[in-house]
Amino acid sequence: VPLALGVSEPLRTTERTTIGRLPERGTSDRDAAHAILDEGVVCHVGLGTPHGPVVIPTTYARRGDEVLVHGSPAATWLRSLGKGTPMCLTVTLLDGLVLARSAFHHSMNYRSVVVFGTAEAITDPAEKAAALDAIVDHVVPGRMAEVRPTTDEELRATLVVRLPLDEASVKVRTGGPNDDEADLERTDLWAGIVPTQLGFGTPVPAGDVPADLAPPPSVLGYHRPR
Amino acid sequence: VPLALGVSEPLRTTERTTIGRLPERGTSDRDAAHAILDEGVVCHVGLGTPHGPVVIPTTYARRGDEVLVHGSPAATWLRSLGKGTPMCLTVTLLDGLVLARSAFHHSMNYRSVVVFGTAEAITDPAEKAAALDAIVDHVVPGRMAEVRPTTDEELRATLVVRLPLDEASVKVRTGGPNDDEADLERTDLWAGIVPTQLGFGTPVPAGDVPADLAPPPSVLGYHRPR
Repeated sequence: VPLALGVSEPLRTTERTTIGRLPERGTSDRDAAHAILDEGVVCHVGLGTPHGPVVIPTTYARRGDEVLVHGSPAATWLRSLGKGTPMCLTVTLLDGLVLARSAFHHSMNYRSVVVFGTAEAITDPAEKAAALDAIVDHVVPGRMAEVRPTTDEELRATLVVRLPLDEASVKVRTGGPNDDEADLERTDLWAGIVPTQLGFGTPVPAGDVPADLAPPPSVLGYHRPR
Repeated sequence: VPLALGVSEPLRTTERTTIGRLPERGTSDRDAAHAILDEGVVCHVGLGTPHGPVVIPTTYARRGDEVLVHGSPAATWLRSLGKGTPMCLTVTLLDGLVLARSAFHHSMNYRSVVVFGTAEAITDPAEKAAALDAIVDHVVPGRMAEVRPTTDEELRATLVVRLPLDEASVKVRTGGPNDDEADLERTDLWAGIVPTQLGFGTPVPAGDVPADLAPPPSVLGYHRPR
């Protein structure tokens, strides 16, 4: 069946992407995954090691239907990913604290993407350079147009891996508390939401930046796509 | 050697807690770990499964020298943790985007704790109730004093595990960009920091809360310990 124009192919669902708990919060909508990945700044990468599982926070970029992660070639975890060690990459956006009338129904509003798969190292220098540009521009949109270009030496001193955005699950909770019927009669108990969002402050120039050099477009009015 | 009064015993360092990259960012200071865990709202839990590694976002609480995680007894990952499956629990606080004159020296300011170990399920009902209280009060300090008490049935419908805060590493980056000497001469290139912080908005009452019921102390001026 051909897909309708403008409708993305769903994410691949497998046993491990199937949400056992509260499946109504899950979706395999690829556009939903893209939006969460594009808004996030930090992901958490999990992989097995001879010493057990490890979870590493790092930045990333989504480019099309892959997720890019970079770092030093000396980082054991990243080298391991580049060699195809099975991995899981999770991005979580916290949207609110949900306060119910009972402790039991307290919850969080959030949007999360969990991607499973194996990555591969990007070895072609031009592809690697483009991937690094994508990561910088993911964190600070437009920044690559403002900086001193990356040198070949810097490129060699960086490892970039790409993970296909294929087998993945999206989970979203929105709205207020789901209190028990009986608790709704308690007019003395407040319930609601404390909204949360990653906030960005006023840019602080480095001490050695000329006093008359204005912040560039990338940092003026900095915000995430939402 | 007896520890000086008021000085915590350091975290246990092992091969897997040893920070290979940029070890100057690492510390085994237990108080630093406590402060990060107390400020954070969400952790990312990693564990191995027959289908590969998985990374789950969830809330938690630190209580003394253990970290508490809870959820439904129907959640496969949590049941697995309660049976002693090796796990890794990471809390990451993003403090700023670090913009350098080159793409290569772009970075993040952050504070993170990575805890390794095995958890156990809390089975004693009183201990379990106290652990659940600690989790609610971690996310919304003082909230347990305001809500309808937890019932035995709710207690049975919740699984809580505790992970010793023992083998762990703390990593912190602060300050401005570390640009190359040659790039500092480029007076046309801005560099600096965009500060970031999880922000909390004005509480929104649930639709069925009486209009004249003021938000309780726990949500008025909500903030994280810092």
